[in-house]
Amino acid sequence: MNKYNVLGHSIPRLDSPAKARGTAMYTGDLEFPGMLCGKILTSWMPHARILHVDTAEARRVPGVKAVITGRDTLGRGCGPMRAREKSLDFIPLAKDKVRFTGDVIAAVAARDEDAADEALGRIKFEWEEIQPLFTPEEAMKPGAPLIHEQMPGNISRKIVLTYGDVAEGFRRSHRIREDTFTTSSVSHVPLEPHICIAAFESPGSYTLWTGTQVPYLVKSDLALLLGVAESQVRVILPFVGGGFGSKSDGAFSLDLCAALLARETGHPVKIVYSREDEFITTRRRHPMKIHLKTGVNRQGDIIARQAGVLMDGGAYSGWGQASVYLAGLFLCLPYRYGAYHYEGVRAFTNNPVSSAMRGHTAPQVQFASDVQLDMLAEDIGMDPLEIRMRNALENGEVTIAGFKVPTCGLKECLKAVADKSDWYARRANLPGGKGIGMGCAGFPSGHGARLRPDIPAYATAIIRVNEDGGLHLLCGAADTGQGSDTILVQIAAEELGVAFEDIRYVRADTDITPADLGSYSSRETVFAGNAVKNAAGQVKEKLLSFIAAQWQVDRDGMQIQGGQISCLEADKSMSFKQAARLYQEAHHFTPLVAEGSYDPPDKVYYANYSFGVQVAEVEVNQDTGQVKVVKVVSSHDCGQMVNPMSVEGQLEGSVHMGIGFALSENMVLHQGQVLNPSLADYAILLPADMPAVECVHGGAGDPEGPFGAKESGEGTVGPTAPAIVNALYQATKKRFRDLPVTPAQVLKGGEKK
Amino acid sequence: MNKYNVLGHSIPRLDSPAKARGTAMYTGDLEFPGMLCGKILTSWMPHARILHVDTAEARRVPGVKAVITGRDTLGRGCGPMRAREKSLDFIPLAKDKVRFTGDVIAAVAARDEDAADEALGRIKFEWEEIQPLFTPEEAMKPGAPLIHEQMPGNISRKIVLTYGDVAEGFRRSHRIREDTFTTSSVSHVPLEPHICIAAFESPGSYTLWTGTQVPYLVKSDLALLLGVAESQVRVILPFVGGGFGSKSDGAFSLDLCAALLARETGHPVKIVYSREDEFITTRRRHPMKIHLKTGVNRQGDIIARQAGVLMDGGAYSGWGQASVYLAGLFLCLPYRYGAYHYEGVRAFTNNPVSSAMRGHTAPQVQFASDVQLDMLAEDIGMDPLEIRMRNALENGEVTIAGFKVPTCGLKECLKAVADKSDWYARRANLPGGKGIGMGCAGFPSGHGARLRPDIPAYATAIIRVNEDGGLHLLCGAADTGQGSDTILVQIAAEELGVAFEDIRYVRADTDITPADLGSYSSRETVFAGNAVKNAAGQVKEKLLSFIAAQWQVDRDGMQIQGGQISCLEADKSMSFKQAARLYQEAHHFTPLVAEGSYDPPDKVYYANYSFGVQVAEVEVNQDTGQVKVVKVVSSHDCGQMVNPMSVEGQLEGSVHMGIGFALSENMVLHQGQVLNPSLADYAILLPADMPAVECVHGGAGDPEGPFGAKESGEGTVGPTAPAIVNALYQATKKRFRDLPVTPAQVLKGGEKK
Repeated sequence: MNKYNVLGHSIPRLDSPAKARGTAMYTGDLEFPGMLCGKILTSWMPHARILHVDTAEARRVPGVKAVITGRDTLGRGCGPMRAREKSLDFIPLAKDKVRFTGDVIAAVAARDEDAADEALGRIKFEWEEIQPLFTPEEAMKPGAPLIHEQMPGNISRKIVLTYGDVAEGFRRSHRIREDTFTTSSVSHVPLEPHICIAAFESPGSYTLWTGTQVPYLVKSDLALLLGVAESQVRVILPFVGGGFGSKSDGAFSLDLCAALLARETGHPVKIVYSREDEFITTRRRHPMKIHLKTGVNRQGDIIARQAGVLMDGGAYSGWGQASVYLAGLFLCLPYRYGAYHYEGVRAFTNNPVSSAMRGHTAPQVQFASDVQLDMLAEDIGMDPLEIRMRNALENGEVTIAGFKVPTCGLKECLKAVADKSDWYARRANLPGGKGIGMGCAGFPSGHGARLRPDIPAYATAIIRVNEDGGLHLLCGAADTGQGSDTILVQIAAEELGVAFEDIRYVRADTDITPADLGSYSSRETVFAGNAVKNAAGQVKEKLLSFIAAQWQVDRDGMQIQGGQISCLEADKSMSFKQAARLYQEAHHFTPLVAEGSYDPPDKVYYANYSFGVQVAEVEVNQDTGQVKVVKVVSSHDCGQMVNPMSVEGQLEGSVHMGIGFALSENMVLHQGQVLNPSLADYAILLPADMPAVECVHGGAGDPEGPFGAKESGEGTVGPTAPAIVNALYQATKKRFRDLPVTPAQVLKGGEKK
Repeated sequence: MNKYNVLGHSIPRLDSPAKARGTAMYTGDLEFPGMLCGKILTSWMPHARILHVDTAEARRVPGVKAVITGRDTLGRGCGPMRAREKSLDFIPLAKDKVRFTGDVIAAVAARDEDAADEALGRIKFEWEEIQPLFTPEEAMKPGAPLIHEQMPGNISRKIVLTYGDVAEGFRRSHRIREDTFTTSSVSHVPLEPHICIAAFESPGSYTLWTGTQVPYLVKSDLALLLGVAESQVRVILPFVGGGFGSKSDGAFSLDLCAALLARETGHPVKIVYSREDEFITTRRRHPMKIHLKTGVNRQGDIIARQAGVLMDGGAYSGWGQASVYLAGLFLCLPYRYGAYHYEGVRAFTNNPVSSAMRGHTAPQVQFASDVQLDMLAEDIGMDPLEIRMRNALENGEVTIAGFKVPTCGLKECLKAVADKSDWYARRANLPGGKGIGMGCAGFPSGHGARLRPDIPAYATAIIRVNEDGGLHLLCGAADTGQGSDTILVQIAAEELGVAFEDIRYVRADTDITPADLGSYSSRETVFAGNAVKNAAGQVKEKLLSFIAAQWQVDRDGMQIQGGQISCLEADKSMSFKQAARLYQEAHHFTPLVAEGSYDPPDKVYYANYSFGVQVAEVEVNQDTGQVKVVKVVSSHDCGQMVNPMSVEGQLEGSVHMGIGFALSENMVLHQGQVLNPSLADYAILLPADMPAVECVHGGAGDPEGPFGAKESGEGTVGPTAPAIVNALYQATKKRFRDLPVTPAQVLKGGEKK
């Protein structure tokens, strides 16, 4: 029974009609008078010094309005982690050096694409080659050339974490395993590539329409890169066709190039990344080599774990300085450990840049952990479900790495998923070539630490009540397709006791909506949600206090529900709309506005954590090695669901991505070149290959979430790969440790047990 | 010496760079994916009943997506004066009846213009003709068919005002004159015609981008016409290429048609009025027949005036029910009267709709009054300047019709203009064929009466301070080219003690900016300006109180200037930006926001009044009758100027319009058809014909205006025509009473004296 009127209901998303009808305006749909076509040129050298650039011939191409190179920039670097100065190493328009083949080395604005392309081909570069480094191992060899001069040993960051006495743990272990796992070079593949339009207004203001997860960070980066005040940059968020982390690094090359070209020409400039640009120059999931040594006792308790992770960071930091730390922390979700030691190293290479991607290191490390857990369970003769039940975190626990977990529904999820998947019966009775497997994951909602020294990890919202009682919610949260716009309106409507339809949502525009750091780290539901709830609570408070005074009744006896304000004791009621009018009449029609913010209480880790379990059933074609995922049962504790339909969409989407991660996705690199930068060659799952996904909701409300909500859909990308790989073991009797498990791997690879 | 830092400075307008560079987005520049071309069909019958419409053939035209007629509407009427139900008679898409040839009878949305045009041509109408009425006299004849059934005698409104004993006044007069004046059918001719794009979002929200002076009224009208809540309609104001009153009537036919076509097709629909549509279907200045009987004593005091005004209202009310009242009131500006009687009648005809146009009846009646005053001066042997000095209102006076005039700089303006124009010498010494003449006017700033029963005549503003100390001003005021955006930013910057560049302005968008009734009645400077000043004052108060508490000093000793907050006594200072950050840090980074409103104290008339005088020098070609205006000296009391350069632009623009009104502009009507609906045939003044305009500022600050400001540029369209006609008398010895005074009139017309 849902105790809420708007919350917890499967309200169709605000943006659905426009998207279904094709009228939703993405950045690519925007046209401005006099707009020029911008194009970027990427490096063909993976590692080289730029000695000389000659743009004279390019400038003479008819229709070309401007040609820019790194010499037209301040040469500054940027990165999303402003608080860590050493990570601000991404040079959006390379000046002196290129570090990978996705480095942008020039850009052109022209009347049309042909002129732009021709001009790009006529820019002449003189290079001094530097020895390229394509693996972390090569890069860390003594004497290797430095990719970033200030980073000795090409080490982007090294993290060592020690909790408890690991040696003692291993001594006490009944069974210890050591395994090495590898994960591949995975691309986010948002259906909409990066696109930006920039306009310049004299004397020095820039407006950007750009598909980003972090409008606020883009504003801040552009101000830094261009050397202007932050308020001189306006970032407007059109509809965005997916991000999954690929659009969360702040400013990308196209943002800076479009801004510079707009300044140079006085015209708006649009730059659209090709699919190839999207694969090569943006970001990818960190490929990892994960070594796990894990000891369990006879009862299956994990009493010691030692983890070593080597990450190919590619050419720049991106979110990588966080990634190498997070991998260590996320490995401890969702289980209890006796002792834990982690060593993580992120190395720079001349490969594409690794950064955050849906799950931000959790899918990689939790894949390794959950596959090894199955091996350990087998070793000690335990069912995979039992060993997970035994180690699962519970409400109020603190992970060994220090995450305070206010609520954890993992056990409920495990029970639900076992029930729905008919776990024991299927495990016992599936014929050869078929298998069923399980994976678990935990994931946090919104990082509480400061990304920038001067700004907390906050979210804010403004609610305005109109004269006719209609409401507008202004929020800087970035809905890039995940549905946050809709759930923020649901939260506001629930808190205010009005209908969903009474509230109009104003999307992120840094000149209009108040600050929100954006859509990364699964923060919008909890962070922006709390800010919205807070603003709505203040509007409610203003109105109820005012009407209580009018009625001469006690404020505490008043409520709003279904658009009606009432005081039961005094048997009085009035519509929200009437009350809003009365309030404004009594205040010279000053707009009734309230502001809300959320400044998370945990400044080190996170507000709360979601948990999920998936059971995958697979069928292997023993002749071809083809794996068909027949069905996935997914159970997820995301606290109080704000919109169940939206949660299901998230779960299904994460399964799609998880299957690709497990079975097919891999950017093939050769000498720093991506060999398959196209949707024809890079194998994301096609619709026909999607299995049936059954969703079961577990878990109750969380005290820190707005109305008890937690993140949904980022953590759930994690359980899919281990569930599939564990199922493959039943189907093939082979243990797979290297992703993706392609048909060739199924036939030839793996380890017979 | 300017005591202000930002106010009173000639800061270039915010919108200048974009407009100069061609990047400013007007509605016509906007393109949306899937957007359809909308076209309207206007009636060719001036007065008829629609018996039957057949759209079947039109619908079959390839590329046509929707065809609508009045049958697709709720049949409701609208009009800007919501408080006067009888004036809500404008049916934007005619259903049963047409009342003039500008009535829109159908609209089409199609893939392109050709398909739309072809479809319009294939709609079949069956009519029942009704006797058309083309003059107020015909229309008011007993037995004439009623244009609006509920309006007997085709009288739109009749107003009788009596102040003092007019009969007694005439008895005491030394000299009495009776004269009849006529004014022509003048079009606003904004360079940008009416353009609207509408988009519909299921289940029932509409977004309009429309070039209007009154976004808020358009929203309200559309909600009424479509039968939805006001918050379901969003009106966004792109840049607007002039209005001059033509875009102040609320919703026009294109707004409703675009909205209906968008709903019908699910696609955005753009409708662009042709120049012909613009002339015929929008609005025009009321043509008037003005009879004045005026008595003066030997000293030149106006001791009695009886005025009769007959106005051709055209087919609908528009602002007309106000116009007929205002003509009576404005006639009493800018002079003192002993006694006054006014009878005004506005009649419906089957001509284009008359409504508000720059000066809203003042130019017509003040033309008559100021020309007659010259005749009276001559009759009693007085100089035109002397008789004006004698009768000019002064600070604190109340006009005979009840306008309380807090400040009136008319005498200063008269002195200044006499001085600058070398009045006495030129009057005495100009050779034949040349002449110099004078005209005066007064005009109010912003009507205080309620336009709608439920909403005061208010303006509101919101100011938000960003984390980096940058400021955003959100205001619903409609800058249609007059420069209000810029002066509102100046007002905010002055009040806050920050630089003009520190504030970014967010233009009217009813989902984002708080309510403002719009740009009519010269209200933005005083109304929106006061709301902005109020909001800025509150931001200042919040910040100063907070910092005073931090410093433990008295709030009253604190100030902000040049972006610095300081307390002189304590010798402390801090930048505004730092203070803004500190404030927000201390408040969980809740956005620092303040709201302001202005609810005018005078609920019947106006907040304050501006005054102006112009002296025109003309040269007549005695062979061709061509009149060349050689020079205009204009002096204007607009209180404290917010932006002198902008005031001058307004003054020059009003002279341009005043000359056209005096000498050339006339929509020639024949049987309800406009014979010259094109810029080739309708003679607005060409740039080469513009005289030198010299501006002199007179008058001091007004207590009710923000920093003492008053309206500028609307009232100043008034003095031009009488100044020219009075100058023509000196040049030709002919008195002209009928506008425009064309070359033919100069040669043949007028009255020899």
